[in-house]
Amino acid sequence: MRGPEETAQRVKNYLGKHDRLIGLLGAQIEEVKPGYAKVALTVEDKHLNAANVCHGGVLFTLADLAFALASNSHGQTALALEVSFSFLKAAVVGDQIVAQAREVHLGRRTATYLIEITRQGDEKVALMKGTVFRFERPFPPTE
Amino acid sequence: MRGPEETAQRVKNYLGKHDRLIGLLGAQIEEVKPGYAKVALTVEDKHLNAANVCHGGVLFTLADLAFALASNSHGQTALALEVSFSFLKAAVVGDQIVAQAREVHLGRRTATYLIEITRQGDEKVALMKGTVFRFERPFPPTE
Amino acid sequence: MRGPEETAQRVKNYLGKHDRLIGLLGAQIEEVKPGYAKVALTVEDKHLNAANVCHGGVLFTLADLAFALASNSHGQTALALEVSFSFLKAAVVGDQIVAQAREVHLGRRTATYLIEITRQGDEKVALMKGTVFRFERPFPPTE
Amino acid sequence: MRGPEETAQRVKNYLGKHDRLIGLLGAQIEEVKPGYAKVALTVEDKHLNAANVCHGGVLFTLADLAFALASNSHGQTALALEVSFSFLKAAVVGDQIVAQAREVHLGRRTATYLIEITRQGDEKVALMKGTVFRFERPFPPTE
Repeated sequence: MRGPEETAQRVKNYLGKHDRLIGLLGAQIEEVKPGYAKVALTVEDKHLNAANVCHGGVLFTLADLAFALASNSHGQTALALEVSFSFLKAAVVGDQIVAQAREVHLGRRTATYLIEITRQGDEKVALMKGTVFRFERPFPPTE
Repeated sequence: MRGPEETAQRVKNYLGKHDRLIGLLGAQIEEVKPGYAKVALTVEDKHLNAANVCHGGVLFTLADLAFALASNSHGQTALALEVSFSFLKAAVVGDQIVAQAREVHLGRRTATYLIEITRQGDEKVALMKGTVFRFERPFPPTE
Repeated sequence: MRGPEETAQRVKNYLGKHDRLIGLLGAQIEEVKPGYAKVALTVEDKHLNAANVCHGGVLFTLADLAFALASNSHGQTALALEVSFSFLKAAVVGDQIVAQAREVHLGRRTATYLIEITRQGDEKVALMKGTVFRFERPFPPTE
Repeated sequence: MRGPEETAQRVKNYLGKHDRLIGLLGAQIEEVKPGYAKVALTVEDKHLNAANVCHGGVLFTLADLAFALASNSHGQTALALEVSFSFLKAAVVGDQIVAQAREVHLGRRTATYLIEITRQGDEKVALMKGTVFRFERPFPPTE
């Protein structure tokens, strides 16, 4: 039988291997624990929008990765229903951005998370709140 | 002096040339009119998450592109403050997905948009609501 | 056996009788159809905040009533999971405000609605997007 | 010249005196500091919806009061642009519910807050995220 930490580690490995946007954007999964995840990215030219700042889609995807890892970390399949995203500061080329997802509420059928994006360790860039639906099937799906 | 349709066309050309995620994801800007934009993408393997469906980050980025085009279409710089995103159905490889942004409210300092994502013409995939801050400087920035 | 219109009518009567805030605020349920509801209120002094405009809590409650009616209109218990609310214009004493909820997506376990608030028939005051969880038990609960 | 704590106290007094929904619902402003506010309410029969649990509109209004107090606490007029609200648990008659608003980001033109609602001291009932527009005029308006 597996403990919660071991399950979270398996979720990290499986998602890290199969999620295609991690490679496309060049993100790094730094840590996954039960109800928690941390994902990092260094902003490069390929991440910019027409205003030459980091694309909203890149910030969102980084937050979404941390959200998916944290919400699936218990070994039960979770799917996003709703997210709301607040843009606080623009990130620029060279910024080390980190998204951390923390569990606010874990219910039987739904769960809610706060995902904070910072740069250079502590300056807030964005804040996301998200809710998932929890299915009864295991995650990773193959086990 | 430029008319509103011509301004929207210049915004389309500028953003289409300078936004890096359009190329990275393979999106197409189909139409930009004052307060409106339409962006399309065909879901490929590179767009998938670990559950083998189209990544939330791809759907969000497509909606965000339409949102950016519609909110900057008046020739005045607009920056996203807040978005909320509802995931309605999963999109899969081969789906032709389209994001259309429509202006709900155009105020002096802020404006609000609804962005609908559909596949194969009419089936709803996602719905986003977003609010921008409107700066007094022109867009594109170089004019 | 009951048709969908008759079920919606029963939901209107039951909620109109048992929801305490309808009386406290002085709201009127104008219409309920399957997946749709319309609720009205005339702004009075008792609805104002410290800035002497209609309280955000009053606008939200009016939208929430339309949302609850529309999402329960099929005769199945629905509970709000998430809402996002955009304030577009301030409403003032004497304004006739109306909230209309329309179904965007009706899934087996969740459903999504847009609720528009207008005043004097057509001027937009606020826009809400909301998602419910659908329980398997009937609504009204006593049937 | 006034210090930040004294300004927050003046905002508390002014809003407490002029906001009509505080009296209508029976809410209590417990504390206001720069960027922070705490508001409480005991759920009574008059606060219930047709499912006999505390109305979403009551929870929202309580959170909105804390949000308004915290965002105006610096003595500068702030108006809500966008909020998103997650319903975590139902509150029932007799519950002592408390909304606490905390500042996440204070910008020159906009600011963002998290508002947490708990009951009986620590059990989470709801979570709201909200963004205001900051006007250049003082609050309270009469000074």
